[in-house]
Amino acid sequence: MRGFGVYSIGNVGWIEKEAPACGPLDAIVRPTILAPCSSDCHIAHGASGAYKNRILGHESVGIVVEVGAMVKNFKPGDYVVVPCSTPDWLKPNVQNFISNAHDETPMSSFKFVFKKDGVFAERYHVNLADANLVLLPEGVSPEAALMTVDMMSTGFHGVELANIGFGDTVVVIGIGPVGLMAVAGAALSGAGRIIAVGTRVNCVKAAYAYGATDVISYKDGDIAEQVRERTKGGADRVIIAGGNHETFTQAVAMTREMGTIANVNFFDAHETIQLPVVLWGLGMANKDIRGGFCPGGAKRIEKLLNLIAAGRIDPTKIISHTFNGFNTIPEAYALMDSKSPDLIKPIVVCSDLT
Amino acid sequence: MRGFGVYSIGNVGWIEKEAPACGPLDAIVRPTILAPCSSDCHIAHGASGAYKNRILGHESVGIVVEVGAMVKNFKPGDYVVVPCSTPDWLKPNVQNFISNAHDETPMSSFKFVFKKDGVFAERYHVNLADANLVLLPEGVSPEAALMTVDMMSTGFHGVELANIGFGDTVVVIGIGPVGLMAVAGAALSGAGRIIAVGTRVNCVKAAYAYGATDVISYKDGDIAEQVRERTKGGADRVIIAGGNHETFTQAVAMTREMGTIANVNFFDAHETIQLPVVLWGLGMANKDIRGGFCPGGAKRIEKLLNLIAAGRIDPTKIISHTFNGFNTIPEAYALMDSKSPDLIKPIVVCSDLT
Amino acid sequence: MRGFGVYSIGNVGWIEKEAPACGPLDAIVRPTILAPCSSDCHIAHGASGAYKNRILGHESVGIVVEVGAMVKNFKPGDYVVVPCSTPDWLKPNVQNFISNAHDETPMSSFKFVFKKDGVFAERYHVNLADANLVLLPEGVSPEAALMTVDMMSTGFHGVELANIGFGDTVVVIGIGPVGLMAVAGAALSGAGRIIAVGTRVNCVKAAYAYGATDVISYKDGDIAEQVRERTKGGADRVIIAGGNHETFTQAVAMTREMGTIANVNFFDAHETIQLPVVLWGLGMANKDIRGGFCPGGAKRIEKLLNLIAAGRIDPTKIISHTFNGFNTIPEAYALMDSKSPDLIKPIVVCSDLT
Amino acid sequence: MRGFGVYSIGNVGWIEKEAPACGPLDAIVRPTILAPCSSDCHIAHGASGAYKNRILGHESVGIVVEVGAMVKNFKPGDYVVVPCSTPDWLKPNVQNFISNAHDETPMSSFKFVFKKDGVFAERYHVNLADANLVLLPEGVSPEAALMTVDMMSTGFHGVELANIGFGDTVVVIGIGPVGLMAVAGAALSGAGRIIAVGTRVNCVKAAYAYGATDVISYKDGDIAEQVRERTKGGADRVIIAGGNHETFTQAVAMTREMGTIANVNFFDAHETIQLPVVLWGLGMANKDIRGGFCPGGAKRIEKLLNLIAAGRIDPTKIISHTFNGFNTIPEAYALMDSKSPDLIKPIVVCSDLT
Repeated sequence: MRGFGVYSIGNVGWIEKEAPACGPLDAIVRPTILAPCSSDCHIAHGASGAYKNRILGHESVGIVVEVGAMVKNFKPGDYVVVPCSTPDWLKPNVQNFISNAHDETPMSSFKFVFKKDGVFAERYHVNLADANLVLLPEGVSPEAALMTVDMMSTGFHGVELANIGFGDTVVVIGIGPVGLMAVAGAALSGAGRIIAVGTRVNCVKAAYAYGATDVISYKDGDIAEQVRERTKGGADRVIIAGGNHETFTQAVAMTREMGTIANVNFFDAHETIQLPVVLWGLGMANKDIRGGFCPGGAKRIEKLLNLIAAGRIDPTKIISHTFNGFNTIPEAYALMDSKSPDLIKPIVVCSDLT
Repeated sequence: MRGFGVYSIGNVGWIEKEAPACGPLDAIVRPTILAPCSSDCHIAHGASGAYKNRILGHESVGIVVEVGAMVKNFKPGDYVVVPCSTPDWLKPNVQNFISNAHDETPMSSFKFVFKKDGVFAERYHVNLADANLVLLPEGVSPEAALMTVDMMSTGFHGVELANIGFGDTVVVIGIGPVGLMAVAGAALSGAGRIIAVGTRVNCVKAAYAYGATDVISYKDGDIAEQVRERTKGGADRVIIAGGNHETFTQAVAMTREMGTIANVNFFDAHETIQLPVVLWGLGMANKDIRGGFCPGGAKRIEKLLNLIAAGRIDPTKIISHTFNGFNTIPEAYALMDSKSPDLIKPIVVCSDLT
Repeated sequence: MRGFGVYSIGNVGWIEKEAPACGPLDAIVRPTILAPCSSDCHIAHGASGAYKNRILGHESVGIVVEVGAMVKNFKPGDYVVVPCSTPDWLKPNVQNFISNAHDETPMSSFKFVFKKDGVFAERYHVNLADANLVLLPEGVSPEAALMTVDMMSTGFHGVELANIGFGDTVVVIGIGPVGLMAVAGAALSGAGRIIAVGTRVNCVKAAYAYGATDVISYKDGDIAEQVRERTKGGADRVIIAGGNHETFTQAVAMTREMGTIANVNFFDAHETIQLPVVLWGLGMANKDIRGGFCPGGAKRIEKLLNLIAAGRIDPTKIISHTFNGFNTIPEAYALMDSKSPDLIKPIVVCSDLT
Repeated sequence: MRGFGVYSIGNVGWIEKEAPACGPLDAIVRPTILAPCSSDCHIAHGASGAYKNRILGHESVGIVVEVGAMVKNFKPGDYVVVPCSTPDWLKPNVQNFISNAHDETPMSSFKFVFKKDGVFAERYHVNLADANLVLLPEGVSPEAALMTVDMMSTGFHGVELANIGFGDTVVVIGIGPVGLMAVAGAALSGAGRIIAVGTRVNCVKAAYAYGATDVISYKDGDIAEQVRERTKGGADRVIIAGGNHETFTQAVAMTREMGTIANVNFFDAHETIQLPVVLWGLGMANKDIRGGFCPGGAKRIEKLLNLIAAGRIDPTKIISHTFNGFNTIPEAYALMDSKSPDLIKPIVVCSDLT
């Protein structure tokens, strides 16, 4: 079996492997569409350790080719949507509220690439099929479904963490695909004004299409200052969907007392993040700081698919590039890695796989 | 001063009164637009007791004509939006979370008509101006602002009580103006499918415009059955925005386990409401039943106005009839009282008042 | 294998059966202590349908005698605490927040007796051992642990549903073992005054020991009146842990506006429950009505055991009768069924089982 | 009139001033007991700016000597409890949920000392008497009531922010009077194990008395390490009730994924606080960081008084030193400023004031 992955830090390419084995509760899936994510590039560059001969990829929809003997609700041939996060629901830790993102340690429900080969393969393994797979519903295209498994789930988790009330002013920092989904999710959560922070032309256009009322740019000065000026003192909720340690400090600075800072951005392990003491009200301002990985499992994705089926959101507007053929994964990956100016999100249609 | 009110149960008409006096913390306002509400008719017919010579009306925007000596943020000439609920913020009871609807007893923050003359008058009194008035913001029409003070605030309170999560299926029973605002609010709160229950042609059309995906009618059979069939077992959240004791029972019956029933409908004091024991899971199904009066005060309305200013909602689509002149209040009231088939919400523009 | 169960409605006794088989994810447990519950009696009397030759019992701790091949964290010989509710964690429905009580339909996570033989047997079956079993922790007696699996979990669920804030006045209606645990749980959740409603001498004594500040009795007049008088208008939170349809109406009547009514009592399927319209504020009083079955699974019980280990609560004070020997189950059951005046909770120590 | 205050940074002593004037909604109070707080010392040393001739003190109970013409519920002679935070309830900002701590900007509801003279005076002014004063209830001693106005309110706010569930393991860092109240509040909020961090003998003893199960000391090594070891990976909730920027970093380090860090400690404006990126899970661990000033107003204090009246807590155990006479304020202040090893909380009984 062939897959696209990382040989060693910084080196990517096709890898030949045995097809994955199917446990009694699991499923083996053949991808029909998949998408590279900036996380794949970060992993390949060593951000999460030195993986060797590990197949990349965690965003896919596909066709079930095999199920374990104890799987009840799926069978070969089913068209399924595969969450990027597939918790081990037999671990008691998932019995806490949002802990399905963390069946053991932080992000431990993220199994693809971190714990086993990912989805950029002719066949991939999904643990606990009954709890982690969803049938592609009628009326939702595979492309739209593909956008739920990480982009929508992550962007919407930022919205959930932000705790938005009707009419709140919300800032979304970063308008890559996750940030754009956060803009859309904020509009679907009662936000009034939505101030998006970003610069790239395509993304700015998409931000307005998804509900931003203002777009500001780093190029026009300190973004915290810009937000404080436009909001007369600070936004109610700020979602961090991109950036670095400076962004964090700015996010706290642009939030009003009693506001919320919600992070869904991976910070770099080597960064030093400062909490601005005065702007955090010396600890007295009731500015909540939250950050987390998106919930996993079938129900999560089912709910997001409901939004698409009901016409509340069209996540395919973030798809900027479509590649045809499983063989084009390297090209799509290279595009993602190079972050070309017109890129939002590339996808790969694997109609040639059987 | 002239006002339109109720002489005695069932008898309405113009009433001549002295203009209201302004307390040190209060304001006197002249209406520029106002709207009759079905509650005004219920009050006139005796639903809340036997008022005598009481001016009706609790929905209005207008111009400040006088402020008390201790008012800091408003002055004569200010164009203001006036919440239908104006709590006494000096009562400790409002210091509980949503208790600003109940500064003393249930609905005690509803001052107009219940405790003093209402807004269908050349001049009306507003308690605690600094805490209860909002300046009409730029970019929001008086007509749109008028819809926030009760219709949006009440419909959206139903949505708040319903505790909607992303992709939930929501039923809204009743698609008069409050129900239509609940439909719009549900769409702005992450609902997936929204099933509206109603029959009148104008209202059905508006329901779709505000985000309903399905509209079902009492005429096609038991609505609980219809919902259970369409949702394969029950909706996640049900908002009651109209109906009677039977509606309540149906609402519980159409809600799945772990769902929520949220009421913003006034039940009649003479009704007997039954809780369907089996359908409530014998008390074991974690189906929450909630019901309440909309929060009051300035901040509430400010937040709703934010939604209009940001283009998230156009509440003026529920205005079906516009009357010109303070003198037309009796006509507008009569239309509301008769519930003509094409009625959604009438308003009265008082451009003749000075 | 021998077990104590129901032959047919109203007829109970010993039943001879084959020992249960162990699935790959499951465990077989031998009880070391167990307890009859009033639910066992209700089931035997036909309240939940006509079970035939079904072994009763859902409260037990015991020793693992066999585990399935895929079980990772338990082995024969482990001393385990067994929740009365053991969800099927592979059903997506448990991925909603508190839905682990309802993996399918209301109470569907309650597997013992409802779906298979219960724990009054020499050996019983536990589904999904890794997710549903907890090791008996050091420093917690088996007797105390036994009280967590239903009595504490159910009583404390009433407390969770009641949403108590610091200093709230809480009423607990019914002071059988579940009600007593609700009293204790309310005291551990910031309640100020706790008014318990009950009559039996032992229970009244235990209620004070667990933190009640007042105990009132049905014998001294309408309990809603008594509560309203003592609280000058109504309690903040009311937990229903016993009673019938009248109790429900009284509970609503004794709750202040913005208060909460939380039910953990099984209502009878044949009862007619009335919602008192006026006392529910015509639907406008923001009095929340909630009711549900306790959450299931390992984490729930682990958390309750933590409370015992930390010395916050001694649930063994509700144990009024201790029977020695597996053979005494019929006596213990009969005592429970007869509801003798001095009964709170009987347990059976099965030291003769091997 | 005489008061004890700060002349200029670092210089304290008696100040002669005119007695405060009473606005129409306000009250003038004579203290019967009062207490210095470490904040008074910080203010005197310039931590919050350069106050000149400002009377210190924000913890007091006393007798009303005058009320404004519009005050309805209080009269001269009433024995009242005075919250340290007395919001301006006419500002719309308090209409957000917990925003009563922040009627304008962070901590803006803290009026004593920051905005006007404090309570270390023969007479002091209280804004909005009806909304901010509480009658001393029967059965609560003035000493106990005095402990509610800041120590309990602040410590319990830490508990509220920490969002404790039944059986959670809670760490309280710092066991001065606020930390001790946080320990007590955690025990009243369902905490299982409570690990207090502190060293001073009196405080350690009090920590155990209030419900700590473990006390660890900075002297025995890194406290984060100690907590992680005792809890096998991290506590569920960590409350910061003392310390500096290092404490913050340690708090994040000792919290498990999905846990909460709750701060009620004033950080120094000149400190640099670092958020430990890796230990915060690179932003992915769902570790919430919260921090805020205690809610203000009458209802808050009324609820805390309820806890004392119900016998849930005896806050007077934190009173280590009692001074007799208004004239002893300088001594009590000096003791607080010197932080003598046996100090927890000093109070001053002003029985000589008339």
